Order: sequence, then C-alpha cells, then structure tokens
Amino acid sequence: MFGFDISSVTGTARAGSLQLPHGAVHTPCFMPVGTQGTVRTLSPHDLRAVGAEIVLANTYHLHVRPGEDVVAELGGLHRFMGWDRPLLTDSGGFQVFSLEGFRRVDEDGVEFQSHVDGARRRLTPERATEIQWTLGADIAMAFDHVVPGGVDEATARDAMERTSRWLERCARRHQELADRRTGGPADNTDRPPDRPRPSGNPLGPVRQTLWPIIQGGTYPALRREAVERILAVGAWNGIAIGGLSVGEPKASMYRTLEEVEPRLPAALPRYLMGVGFPEDLVAAVLRGVDLFDCVAPTRMGRNGTAFTPDGVVNIRNAKHRTDAAPLDPTCDCETCTTYSRGYLRHLFAARELLGLRLLSLHNVRYLIRLAGEMRRAIAAGDFAGWAEAWRHRYLQSEPA
Amino acid sequence: MFGFDISSVTGTARAGSLQLPHGAVHTPCFMPVGTQGTVRTLSPHDLRAVGAEIVLANTYHLHVRPGEDVVAELGGLHRFMGWDRPLLTDSGGFQVFSLEGFRRVDEDGVEFQSHVDGARRRLTPERATEIQWTLGADIAMAFDHVVPGGVDEATARDAMERTSRWLERCARRHQELADRRTGGPADNTDRPPDRPRPSGNPLGPVRQTLWPIIQGGTYPALRREAVERILAVGAWNGIAIGGLSVGEPKASMYRTLEEVEPRLPAALPRYLMGVGFPEDLVAAVLRGVDLFDCVAPTRMGRNGTAFTPDGVVNIRNAKHRTDAAPLDPTCDCETCTTYSRGYLRHLFAARELLGLRLLSLHNVRYLIRLAGEMRRAIAAGDFAGWAEAWRHRYLQSEPA
Repeated sequence: MFGFDISSVTGTARAGSLQLPHGAVHTPCFMPVGTQGTVRTLSPHDLRAVGAEIVLANTYHLHVRPGEDVVAELGGLHRFMGWDRPLLTDSGGFQVFSLEGFRRVDEDGVEFQSHVDGARRRLTPERATEIQWTLGADIAMAFDHVVPGGVDEATARDAMERTSRWLERCARRHQELADRRTGGPADNTDRPPDRPRPSGNPLGPVRQTLWPIIQGGTYPALRREAVERILAVGAWNGIAIGGLSVGEPKASMYRTLEEVEPRLPAALPRYLMGVGFPEDLVAAVLRGVDLFDCVAPTRMGRNGTAFTPDGVVNIRNAKHRTDAAPLDPTCDCETCTTYSRGYLRHLFAARELLGLRLLSLHNVRYLIRLAGEMRRAIAAGDFAGWAEAWRHRYLQSEPA
Repeated sequence: MFGFDISSVTGTARAGSLQLPHGAVHTPCFMPVGTQGTVRTLSPHDLRAVGAEIVLANTYHLHVRPGEDVVAELGGLHRFMGWDRPLLTDSGGFQVFSLEGFRRVDEDGVEFQSHVDGARRRLTPERATEIQWTLGADIAMAFDHVVPGGVDEATARDAMERTSRWLERCARRHQELADRRTGGPADNTDRPPDRPRPSGNPLGPVRQTLWPIIQGGTYPALRREAVERILAVGAWNGIAIGGLSVGEPKASMYRTLEEVEPRLPAALPRYLMGVGFPEDLVAAVLRGVDLFDCVAPTRMGRNGTAFTPDGVVNIRNAKHRTDAAPLDPTCDCETCTTYSRGYLRHLFAARELLGLRLLSLHNVRYLIRLAGEMRRAIAAGDFAGWAEAWRHRYLQSEPA
C-alpha cells in the first residue's frame, strides 16, 4: 500500500513515484500547505486544477481548532477538507517550537500555550501520533524537537537525541493503533470479542504510514548520527529532513543535505520539511530530495509577489498599471490565462480578495510545474545542466 | 441588438429573455455586483458555475480606481474582468449620493470627494455617460440624483426633476458617442475624412444601450410624473426603478412598485436597483419587476450568513460545529455539494478566506436559483400561490 519507485536518477537527483492509499505522488513533488485544513484562499477544486497531488495539514492547528475529534466526527481530514488525494500531517513539533510565549520541554513531551485561547496544552510523542491517527492522513510525521538555526552543538545534540527517543515512542504508539484497527494484539484489551467491529472508520485510517524526521541542526556529525539512530529503530516508508530553513545560511542547508544524502537508503522518499522557494527546490533536488512543503507560494501570493521563470514579480508595482500581459506568459494557470497584470494590480490596489487567491493559485501552480520540469530534466539525463540554466534565468534577472 | 421577449405572464409577474450584445439574460434575473470590477471573492469562473448571466460594475468605483482609461487600455471592462457575458454599469449617481463627506450638487452635476485619495472630483450627466461608454458595458445607466428614503416631497420632487433634466443630457451625449463610433454626424467634427478608422475599439463599445432611472421617493404622484417624463424623452430598451431600498419601510417600496407598474410599457424590462434580499425579489417579481442587483449575497456571505429555502443560517453558530449536513441540501453549488456545515463553521472560526468565498458563492447561486424557480412558477401559471408557499417556508422558519 506504500511504495516508492525510482524511474530515473541523474547524479544524486531522482525522479519517481510514491504510492499512497489515496493515490500516487510523482517526485520531485511540491506539497501546498493547508495549515488549518485549507490551503489559504484555495479550494480543493483549485488544487486539483493546478495539479497538486498531495497536501500538508498542520496537526497542531487542527488539534487546537476545531480539534481532531470534530474532524473525525465530520468524517476524517480528507472528507473534512473535501480533498480525496493524499494528505500528510506534520506532528505539531515544528509549530509547538515556533510558538511565541510559554513552552516547557521535558522528556515526556512539551507543554505550551494554545495561540487560540491561551490554554495550557501538552503534546507528547504518543498524543501527536494519536491525533494524527484520528485525523487520518496518508502520511503522519514523528513528533520531533526542533531547535533554531543558530544553536550550539550541545543544544542541537540534546534535541536530536530526544527526537530519537521520541521516535521510538511514536513508532510504538502508531503500531498499537494500527494493530487495534486491524484486530491485532492491542485490540483485545479494550474491545470484547463478542462485540462486532463498528462500521465506518471510528478507529482511524485503514492505512497510514509514519515517517521519522532527521534533526541535528547544522552539525554534520549529529545529522549522521540521527540517520543511524532512525534506521536502527525500524523499517520506514519515507524519511524527512527537519530543522532546516529555520534561520541558518542557505549554504549551510545545502551542505547538510550533501552530508546526509549518501547515508539515506535510496529506496526511501526524502522529504525536506518547510522548504519551498524555487531556488531551494532546485538546489535540494540536485542534492537528492524528493518532497517539499512550504507556505511561501501562498503567503507571498497574498503579499502580491509572484514567481516567474525570470524571478519574482511584485504585482503591486505601479509599472504594471496598464500592462496587458499575463503575470507569467509561460504559465497555464487560470490567473495567467485569464487576467492581465494590470487587472491583478488593480485587485491588489483595491484590496480585493480575488487578488490574494489568483496570486496564490499561480504560485502553487508555478512550483508544481517547476517540479514537473525537474522530473523531465532528470529523465533527460543532464539535471545539473538544466539546473544551472534555470538558476541563471531565475536569479540573474532583475526583480520586476 | 437589444430585444426583450416576454414568454409568460401571470398577474403582473413576467418571465422573458433579454438579448444583449454579449448574450441573453433570462428574467426574472439577479445580477451579482462587481463593485470594483470583481464580484468580491468570486472569479468569473465561479460566476459562470453559479449561472450568472449578467454582472453589474460600479462606474464611480472604477472611475476613481483604476480609472476608465486604464480599463480601456486593458481592453475594456469585459476583457479587464475576464467576463465575456453581459455587463451593466451603474452611473455613479447612487455612489456619489451615498458617500460620506463633502458633496455639492448643482444643475450641472455633482462635486464630491474621492473615497480613495480625498481628491475633489466632478460627475455630470455627460461625464457619467462618457465614463460608461469608455468602460463598455452592454447596459449603461443614466446619471441620477438619489435622495434618502425619508425625505420630504419638495426634496424628492427637486431630485426627480433634476434626474429628468439630466436624463436628456445623458441621452444626448450617449447618442453623440454612438454616432461618432458608427461614423455618424458627430464623427466628422474630430476625425479627418482621409484618416482611416483605428483598429480595435478605441472609441468605446460597438453597441451599448442607455437605460433611464425612475426617481420620486415614496411619493406616488412624483413616481408617476417621473415615468411620464422619461417616456417623453425617447424610446428605451429598458427602464430602472431607483431610490428604493434606501431606508424606507418595505411596505412603502412595495406600494411604490404597485403604483408605477401599470404605467410602464410592458415591452421594457424593468430593473429594480439595489434590491436583493430573497423576500424582496419574490415580492417585486409579483409586482412586475424583471431585474435585480444587490451586494447582499456577497456581503452577507462574508459575514457568515447564508440564504436557504428555510431562511437564513448563521454558519458561525456553535451548533454547526459537528454538523455533517450541507449548508443547503437543496442546493447544487460547490459549497453545498462538497463541504459540511461543520467545515464551513471551522473556516469562519479560523478566519480562513475560503469561508468568505464559499458562502458568497452559495448565496449568489441561491438567488440565481430563486430567479429560475420564479421563471418556472410564472410559466406554470400560479405565481401568487407559489410566492405565498415560498414566503411561508422562508419567513416562518426560525433562524438557524
């Protein structure tokens, strides 16, 4: 039910396809982020139209509002969002460690304040796993201890080791939930044998895979050790690289990827968490990454900034006032095939909500098309050459 | 190029179809309002999906931002908005008289302050006509003097008489623009005969019709007189009833419609301006009205309020928290066929922009379906009976 096939490799860049319960995902792949169970301004119909194959949702956000039990009562996360393709939920680790205000970490888990009502809440590896099980995404992530980009080695080691211990607890809990669902050992403890299995899906998803997260900051030795520990815990269907794009220099992120890549089993899809600028996607694919997520395309879109092959365009700029050209003449999205830059600028000047949506739509489509171009370039056999030409065009051009 | 055919009449209620340069409009008809060249939160694709046949845009708003010349440079209002079906522009009269702050009316026109930059601007019957010609909608409206609902008869008479004098000036200017466009008399004054006609559409729309507006407040004698004056000015393709739904009691609006209706030529479509609550649409169709516009469905939608056959629903209400039912089980829109009330409530609780759009979409679809039901009920021959049953269900039910 979970499978990853690599169809072509060029250098360390790979193209392939990942089979998940709700469908196939072609890699390299960009996942739009639906923080609160919706990719901001976009409907599932829009997401299908731009070719999204998998969407990420945030466990922390859905836990505090509306609560995983509400989502379950409304049929699980797929039904809730109206999205029938694959979903991935993060574990809440990143959010909890990014929150302003109170936070206390101990070996058991993290106590924090909800950003919605200020109430004290607690997440542990077991709770994060249970919440994700209840939400029912295709891929769940292990609960991790994330540290900022510039921390010292001792702090990074402490968080990496804790993440590693937490991984064992996540994996154990995930297995218990899966056993209960399928009538395995844990099932007998809380359901009388004469009671028929309830209909529907009250015990969580039929199939869900749990992926571990590599931490260790920008310290190569820690990253290497994190990989070893993860691979020692069990067999996985995928593996994530966390704790990057959190304030460290870009060169440091690229070096870390180069350090980690040779140690990752080729058969596992590799997911670089929270990375989504075009230049980072290209650089990371060159270094063997398969999956990405980032709020950048929608956040920047709402801010009036659009990705194009020639670099970013700020549509609020006065020079677009009477520009009848599309935002990106190479793009096939609704925004670029329907509207002029002049109209899009007007929507932003007039603070019309449609503008936020149209630029978000384009930016997501841009990254999905970029991933598709990379797939083709890898298959064609000279990905490094393609990447160099792409980067030259994207970064050398002046901002519009 | 402009034609109105009445296919069925029941009492004073009429069903028919209006031919306009950009397509047919079936009446009774609700026009969504695209104030600033966009129906707030909805794309042209959404509007087609909910069956909108004609959209209204606001001359005042487009004049102050981005300016009609910008719209013209970007291909005219249809191309600008990405909407290829009929468009109607109001004249700016209503907006200018609704503005807070400075305003001075004299016989020539109105001086007012732009809400965007505070600059003093001036609209006259000629300017309002020219701006609408430049925008290029299928239907342009005459520039009128609108007064609040409760004004005394002398004030209402003054505004009605001025509107009537302004109508002659609008009609004259509109004819001059049309003559110039088609090479008529006015054309020779500003284009040398040896200079070829420019390509494209630099002189305005090929075809546009100008509709007059009946004013006169809630004074039957003034309304009657306004109709007589309008019919004396010329032959029209349609006629609007303005200055209602501006603070007067509903009974007063209905009485005014009953007073005016017998005096209106049957062959002209009648447009009741600014009216759009479901109960008002039904009551007005019963009194012979064919066309409506109102911001209510989108404004209420952004506020979390939805129309349903059983009355309005406030989706933010806590009781919808785990409600798996659709907003309106009788509705065929994307919102009602895709999402639960629980999810829609979550979107509003989490302040997600998608919620504003989904409720706006439903509300517009609701009014367009309501108009369709009215067409069928008129054709079936017992519109009064249908209206009574509809009203009983819509108004007697408790608010959800």
